Amino acid sequence: MATIERVQTDLFRVPLRTMLTDAMHGPMVAFDLITVRVLDSDGLLGTGYTYTVNHGGAAVATMIERDLADALIGVEAGRIEHLWHTMWWRLHYAGRGGHATSAISAVDIALWDLLGRRAGLPLWVLFGGHDPRVPVYAGGIDLELPVDDLRRQADAFLAEGFRAIKMKVGRADLREDVARVAAMREHLGAGFPLMVDANMRWSVDEALRACRALAPFDLGWIEEPTIPDDVRGYARIVREGHHPIAGGENLHTLYEFEHAIRSEALTLPEPDVSNIGGYTTFRKVAALAEANNLRLTSHGVHDLTVHAMAATGTRTYMEAHGFGLQEYMADPMAIIDGHVRAPDTPGHGVLLDFDRLAHACAA
Amino acid sequence: MATIERVQTDLFRVPLRTMLTDAMHGPMVAFDLITVRVLDSDGLLGTGYTYTVNHGGAAVATMIERDLADALIGVEAGRIEHLWHTMWWRLHYAGRGGHATSAISAVDIALWDLLGRRAGLPLWVLFGGHDPRVPVYAGGIDLELPVDDLRRQADAFLAEGFRAIKMKVGRADLREDVARVAAMREHLGAGFPLMVDANMRWSVDEALRACRALAPFDLGWIEEPTIPDDVRGYARIVREGHHPIAGGENLHTLYEFEHAIRSEALTLPEPDVSNIGGYTTFRKVAALAEANNLRLTSHGVHDLTVHAMAATGTRTYMEAHGFGLQEYMADPMAIIDGHVRAPDTPGHGVLLDFDRLAHACAA
Ligand SMILES: [Mg+2]
Ligand SMILES: [Mg+2]
Repeated sequence: MATIERVQTDLFRVPLRTMLTDAMHGPMVAFDLITVRVLDSDGLLGTGYTYTVNHGGAAVATMIERDLADALIGVEAGRIEHLWHTMWWRLHYAGRGGHATSAISAVDIALWDLLGRRAGLPLWVLFGGHDPRVPVYAGGIDLELPVDDLRRQADAFLAEGFRAIKMKVGRADLREDVARVAAMREHLGAGFPLMVDANMRWSVDEALRACRALAPFDLGWIEEPTIPDDVRGYARIVREGHHPIAGGENLHTLYEFEHAIRSEALTLPEPDVSNIGGYTTFRKVAALAEANNLRLTSHGVHDLTVHAMAATGTRTYMEAHGFGLQEYMADPMAIIDGHVRAPDTPGHGVLLDFDRLAHACAA
Repeated sequence: MATIERVQTDLFRVPLRTMLTDAMHGPMVAFDLITVRVLDSDGLLGTGYTYTVNHGGAAVATMIERDLADALIGVEAGRIEHLWHTMWWRLHYAGRGGHATSAISAVDIALWDLLGRRAGLPLWVLFGGHDPRVPVYAGGIDLELPVDDLRRQADAFLAEGFRAIKMKVGRADLREDVARVAAMREHLGAGFPLMVDANMRWSVDEALRACRALAPFDLGWIEEPTIPDDVRGYARIVREGHHPIAGGENLHTLYEFEHAIRSEALTLPEPDVSNIGGYTTFRKVAALAEANNLRLTSHGVHDLTVHAMAATGTRTYMEAHGFGLQEYMADPMAIIDGHVRAPDTPGHGVLLDFDRLAHACAA
């Protein structure tokens, strides 16, 4: 079997077309994109990437380059589970999650891409396909957008093909959240799938108050009502808030999902393939969700995630992220009637335009 | 009040005099030392540091330099709690622990050192002193040391002034662990404080089997019997293993300690001031331990830790680490009759010899 011959890591700073805002991350004007290209001894190439919000990207690239790359060289490229644990233990002291799992994710995604290319199969089939058509929602990062612009953004989402929308909440005055959600519900009509995301802004009691205030608007879910560390707080919100509760973009290990799910702290587990540990861990979280009769959603990088969601029978909506990375892709996925279709090209099929990235997004 | 004017970060690779071995980290031949020097507008200087084992040091230095330093400049140096949370949220996406808390730790330690120098007080007094004399044990990193060398190492520890010793366990064959512990118990005599550390090597059942096999040797505690992610497993070992169980060097947030302590998974919480988030978080863990009637121990960097332990009435032995950083210190703490004494110089009092580090330990 082919062995790994070369690992190339690059760091890009991708500017956003418009400044994005949520309750906790401050204004976002750019994101860090960390790419990994793994070349095997047969000349096959696999590509992976991860990203960070505002900070931390250079550290992730440094980890891959200085701490992970040389552990991969010369190993059979097909031993992904083995390589995953090698990487995990290399960064375990001081790691055990955090940026270490973002670094591992980027490599893991490249290894799976490489395996898909070797097999001549798209990853969603390699993963044991369920349905390549995956329902998707537009994740607005729009906490500071005036209500008129919110409506215009929703219209643009609809024109793009979306049939479900998530908006940010968590303004200092809850009445503003309520007015904004009311405006969106009226604009989109009864029955339209509308979700909200508080990005950890509330205390547990504030979250329960918000749940009561938002009850009239038939929300699909409330996302990250409070900090992910407060698992008992989440469980209380699930029990008393009378809304489905989504979360997981800030959980960084399989064990954190296990703890949250066992504690009945999440209605909708929402891993991010680019920070949970790549496809390897994402699929284990999917199994855990299924075993607990929970629908799986997902965060970020939908171009990659679509393959794992397309292999999961118990998935619900996948998030389509607003970071505009598709501008740097050869053939971005179209949204048709609220769905994307996992591509049938080998691997994950995402072709990044590295020349354009190097030109426009030097870090 | 003085504001922060400059933040300087340096990365050193400190060679070890002898190769160290434990059950999970592989052979250790050097460690990465990441130092931070914070200068305020009055010309006062505070120094902090953290370290990593084998990997991850460059990433930690990158985080401090690129993601944290500019958030500190211009802020009042005395607002440590505020600066801590600013750093936490800067690195929260992809962070929430992991290497991010090591980076935060180094800065936090420098800020406390600076405050101590401003106050003209040693940190142990600034923290609300209990007793500057802190009992300390020698932490042998000696899993592969032949039994004769183990005994010789113990004699050297005794000659240095130690009156308590911890040794590594977790060899592939449990009978070897038993024979080694038996040899040490015989060598040191009944009643001598002897602890063991498995560095996460065992499954829960293997740990319980080891607890039974090691029962005759009157061990002070068994450390990290299994992976820290398995909190329920730890709780079972505490309940059924009939040994005090220590752990915490691989827990990276206050919340992880809260979860472990609430779950009755630890007898002896063992935070490391250089990866838990600095003195700020270490002292909160100490409060949590006290509130739960648990004795506090500590991991690593005893030259720094001694101040937090000297301010804690419910502390037990502190670990003196075997990494040999004292070779690069102006005035390393002496071990007298099993104790070290927190210094009375302002701040933490550790003076690193940066010239020698730059000369001998270029990264
Ligand atoms: Mg979210
Ligand atoms: Mg230990």
